[in-house]
Amino acid sequence: MKHNFGAGPGILPHEVLKQAAAAVIDFNGTGLSLLEISHRSPEFEAVLDEAVKLVKELFEVPAGYSVLFLQGGASTQFALAPYNLLPEGGKAAYLETGVWANKALKEAKFFGETVVVATSKESNFNYIPKDYEIPADAAYFHITSNNTIYGTQLKQFPASSPVPVVCDMSSDIFSRKVNVANFGVIYAGAQKNMGPAGVTLVIVKDDLLGKTGRKIPAMFNYQVQIEGGSMYNTPPCFAIYVSMLTLNWLKAKGGVEAIEKENDAKAAVLYEEIDRNPFFKAVAATEDRSHMNVCFVAANPEHEKPFLKLCDEKGIVGLKGHRSVGGFRASIYNALPITSVYVLIEAMQEFAEKN
Amino acid sequence: MKHNFGAGPGILPHEVLKQAAAAVIDFNGTGLSLLEISHRSPEFEAVLDEAVKLVKELFEVPAGYSVLFLQGGASTQFALAPYNLLPEGGKAAYLETGVWANKALKEAKFFGETVVVATSKESNFNYIPKDYEIPADAAYFHITSNNTIYGTQLKQFPASSPVPVVCDMSSDIFSRKVNVANFGVIYAGAQKNMGPAGVTLVIVKDDLLGKTGRKIPAMFNYQVQIEGGSMYNTPPCFAIYVSMLTLNWLKAKGGVEAIEKENDAKAAVLYEEIDRNPFFKAVAATEDRSHMNVCFVAANPEHEKPFLKLCDEKGIVGLKGHRSVGGFRASIYNALPITSVYVLIEAMQEFAEKN
Repeated sequence: MKHNFGAGPGILPHEVLKQAAAAVIDFNGTGLSLLEISHRSPEFEAVLDEAVKLVKELFEVPAGYSVLFLQGGASTQFALAPYNLLPEGGKAAYLETGVWANKALKEAKFFGETVVVATSKESNFNYIPKDYEIPADAAYFHITSNNTIYGTQLKQFPASSPVPVVCDMSSDIFSRKVNVANFGVIYAGAQKNMGPAGVTLVIVKDDLLGKTGRKIPAMFNYQVQIEGGSMYNTPPCFAIYVSMLTLNWLKAKGGVEAIEKENDAKAAVLYEEIDRNPFFKAVAATEDRSHMNVCFVAANPEHEKPFLKLCDEKGIVGLKGHRSVGGFRASIYNALPITSVYVLIEAMQEFAEKN
Repeated sequence: MKHNFGAGPGILPHEVLKQAAAAVIDFNGTGLSLLEISHRSPEFEAVLDEAVKLVKELFEVPAGYSVLFLQGGASTQFALAPYNLLPEGGKAAYLETGVWANKALKEAKFFGETVVVATSKESNFNYIPKDYEIPADAAYFHITSNNTIYGTQLKQFPASSPVPVVCDMSSDIFSRKVNVANFGVIYAGAQKNMGPAGVTLVIVKDDLLGKTGRKIPAMFNYQVQIEGGSMYNTPPCFAIYVSMLTLNWLKAKGGVEAIEKENDAKAAVLYEEIDRNPFFKAVAATEDRSHMNVCFVAANPEHEKPFLKLCDEKGIVGLKGHRSVGGFRASIYNALPITSVYVLIEAMQEFAEKN
């Protein structure tokens, strides 16, 4: 039995994996694999429809928004958001909360002027800047809801932004309630909380489109993808199917509100142990601590390796921190059961007793 | 037992599907699913390395070319080829052999001037134009090696083109021997002959890059993808894994040369029956007949539905032709056994006897 704390591609529910494996052999009794049926078949169209429906239902997506399943990951959206929303000669505002926010910013520079409203770069992104103004003349304001590498998370989203808010939710989508109406675009690579690598969710407010005066190649054009119902070309069928199964699993668990409580409970017990146990210390500012990626270090750096070794013996995998922060990162995504968190806490306690 | 003649996503080898299903539960004894392990893990890096190695080996890719596994399908490459190769103010040449060739052409117009060297549009693309000159002042010459919808295939590639040849090989890659050295860029969506939907193979000649003077966002930049080893961001791990398995299956079968013989044999017996059987007629010009997508119609249009019904009873699926051609399309990709072709031939003979 493994306890998968990997940062991504991350843990998926076991029952989802079982259904996915079965569909690779025989999809819904068709006698064919899901991997070898037409994306235009009624069977696959039902999968895509159901995935879109589940996103709308679980996230309470209001009217006037479209739900897309695209390819290319969040990194492609770093470019597509400005491509579709930033007019020639326009300006886009960014909140710089980590390496991924910075990469998004860099892609926007290909399309227009950018302004960084605030950054926490000076302290290796260990907090979320809060004291900033969103420029009213920007085409949009871009934020990253959760910063996987540094273990920080925006606890409050801008509720009355003067401009549309574009949010990269790759690492905490469907982990907590969000008011979609406060956003212009939400995007997320699936591989942390929604499904396997290879599909990207994009939720876009329809009336923001078509205003840049820019000509956009078909595959990069949100409007074309909306008109094609995410099937302008062959979509990543398997990744969409597994996402649909995962969303269905989430619905059966009680939806986003229920999982948010579980995630809060998992984060609470783990941070409590980190704060209590003198062998470990948390990395992120207390008020900005992520409920998805819990980053911590050994109080004595020499304890790092032996603790990872102990974890390995207990079946705890994926705990090593990102190289730019070091230490440990416990990713406690939706599918990770609290029992795995308890196994990690026990390992921390055992380590403290032995040393 | 189904006989899968679907045009794509198409049939995959049964042993590949079995291995893929097993990896969805437990990948290589890691105790984790392939869907929930890090793309930076040694286990997945070995998969990607092996996939690249197999492409190079099976296609005898010469030095000076890079092999990429990207997202977004051939439709994304329609834009990325000109984005990376067509300088501002430059011109690109296209051979218009069908809807997909035309879509590729349309995307090039976003980046520069285009010229159609020849087209078979006037006869619904039922042949491959051969009488044309490739303009020596073009940045590249774009062709589509096989036209899935119309059942035509380029039998001869330009061997001494004055400009780099860019080829969409989505529907016949790895089905026949190709001299990669005659191409500047080869690209192919995986879902017909190489793997499942969700990954795109790109083979690019390195010294063609960086010459447009154009600034290209990271995800659209072949050079960035080469430097990142197809892992600038999280790749579509599962689709790459299944492609690796499929390429490995092809290697075990004797490689491209061996499969080409099988494909030729499958095509020969099927076209022979179409030509012999008065109830059916072939659609494409004889010399351009595809060995991947065999398009034919019922001599009497009223026989179309009853023949499809008979096929359905025999477990033959995916035979309905594309709406723009009508009739039937038997896609006989690498993974389709000749026994399935015989089942189809038997159905054609049985239908002729009964009617």
